[in-house]
Amino acid sequence: MSIVYKSEPQRGAEWRRLFAEALPDLPFHIWPETGDPAEVRYLAAWQPPEDIATRFPALEVLFSVGAGVDQFDLSALPPSVQVVRMVEPGLTAGMVEYVTLSVLALHREFPLFLDQQRRGIWAATKGVRAERRRVGVLGLGVLGLAAVKALRGFGFAVSGWSRSRRDLDGAPSFAGTEELPAFLSELDILVCLLPLTEGTRGMLCASLFDAMPRGAGVVNAGRGGHLVAADLLAALDSGQLSAAILDVSDPEPPPPDHPFWHHPRIWLTPHVASMTHAETGGEAVIENVRRHRRGEPMLGLVDRLRGY
Amino acid sequence: MSIVYKSEPQRGAEWRRLFAEALPDLPFHIWPETGDPAEVRYLAAWQPPEDIATRFPALEVLFSVGAGVDQFDLSALPPSVQVVRMVEPGLTAGMVEYVTLSVLALHREFPLFLDQQRRGIWAATKGVRAERRRVGVLGLGVLGLAAVKALRGFGFAVSGWSRSRRDLDGAPSFAGTEELPAFLSELDILVCLLPLTEGTRGMLCASLFDAMPRGAGVVNAGRGGHLVAADLLAALDSGQLSAAILDVSDPEPPPPDHPFWHHPRIWLTPHVASMTHAETGGEAVIENVRRHRRGEPMLGLVDRLRGY
Repeated sequence: MSIVYKSEPQRGAEWRRLFAEALPDLPFHIWPETGDPAEVRYLAAWQPPEDIATRFPALEVLFSVGAGVDQFDLSALPPSVQVVRMVEPGLTAGMVEYVTLSVLALHREFPLFLDQQRRGIWAATKGVRAERRRVGVLGLGVLGLAAVKALRGFGFAVSGWSRSRRDLDGAPSFAGTEELPAFLSELDILVCLLPLTEGTRGMLCASLFDAMPRGAGVVNAGRGGHLVAADLLAALDSGQLSAAILDVSDPEPPPPDHPFWHHPRIWLTPHVASMTHAETGGEAVIENVRRHRRGEPMLGLVDRLRGY
Repeated sequence: MSIVYKSEPQRGAEWRRLFAEALPDLPFHIWPETGDPAEVRYLAAWQPPEDIATRFPALEVLFSVGAGVDQFDLSALPPSVQVVRMVEPGLTAGMVEYVTLSVLALHREFPLFLDQQRRGIWAATKGVRAERRRVGVLGLGVLGLAAVKALRGFGFAVSGWSRSRRDLDGAPSFAGTEELPAFLSELDILVCLLPLTEGTRGMLCASLFDAMPRGAGVVNAGRGGHLVAADLLAALDSGQLSAAILDVSDPEPPPPDHPFWHHPRIWLTPHVASMTHAETGGEAVIENVRRHRRGEPMLGLVDRLRGY
């Protein structure tokens, strides 16, 4: 019985050390080294090998080293393989930082001010108190719930939307397609933290932007596939949206001639919103291997039909 | 006995309403209307009239409508006039937002990423956990203490410096000129929230930047006069500093040909970090007028010798 790691090598070396301490009986291989493929029960990867099913016939669990599993082709996996996404405190803390920073930047109109700066304009605006700024979080998993909590700490009027209703400790919680228009109609700033599935692909599109109040801002820290780029550009150019902060694109990076690089009201960061930390990420996988061996439910187990 | 308000007229109208309710016996005049100048006991202003001493011979209190009093020429005021700076929750909340946003932006390397964006570069960095990011706040008044508290909430390793030692609830607190080098030597990000006095003017200069670790970032939300612009530009160009976020300049705005407008690692905002909110600011002055009438100490009373 062994585990194979196939991702960034520096983190792999750190995980090998953590595994040697915590699970000394479980051989830890760093790809392309795998030991006997028939012994591999666990695979931790961002991009698994294409021949995963034939190469590792005894595979039981595929761990994503990132928050999402949309990079996996779930249909190519034997049904018996369990898929687990990364849930670890370092990743959550990083996303809370990115979302807080981005929402504060839109709230305090930094895209406007930096655009003014480059054009030599010094012009303050009146400003709005946080209590009057309505911020909505799309997607209420571990990351979304943590973002809601942090944003409420600044006094923002926060609400959330998810496929099924979540308890937001008193904040308005919207659920399902039928409540999406009501959620959107009240927002000054929208934050997308959805998983990418067939149901959410292309969700940040013209009809969604049109359902928001004129001049709203958008943060996409989900996946590039959530956003219809042409619709975002049209909404910014018409003034329906005032600014967008994007950590993701489709493809990544955008092609050299893509308008995202130079649009004055778009901030683009290179998929850095949240990264799995070597230590806490390794500990999360170790904990899940222990749970799996004891027959307990793993944290972050993916419903392969839902896709998250 | 009356009060004169000399500042932004829209806020003046709001204050007149608040005063009429709270202190109906105190006539409230909006400049240039003053009623009988001999009756004026209170003046609330950003820029008082130059002939303040002769024009209002019975003046007892000068209220600043902003956080600082450095715009006042204290030497031109009769010694009997008390000077009060603005301390109100809206102004504090705004500054906490600005400082949090700016520190997160430096922590998450947004100036680097936005510069890369405009140059068509998609390159992530390794990132540093908040716990390993050392943030220092220069100036521990009401605003500085609130900033320290908010930054600690993100897990940053926060310390503070002030002229005299303050209790930071367990965070390292440095005091006086002799402890400044030790404070600076440990910082990745420095936030200036000092009052502008003869003792602090030009404090953000080459020797201060050189006392910080190479590659540090700076936030100036104090006054433009704290910063020696040429020294900042030299430190950015040599790599001693990595980025700066400035809400203030001297003069404001900077001249059209000033490098602040176009330096890729400088973010410049038009003095918007924190603005006195009409309602809570008016309530703060009303409370202080009541205290003054009862012979109690006013909140935000300035030591005219110290200058803050």
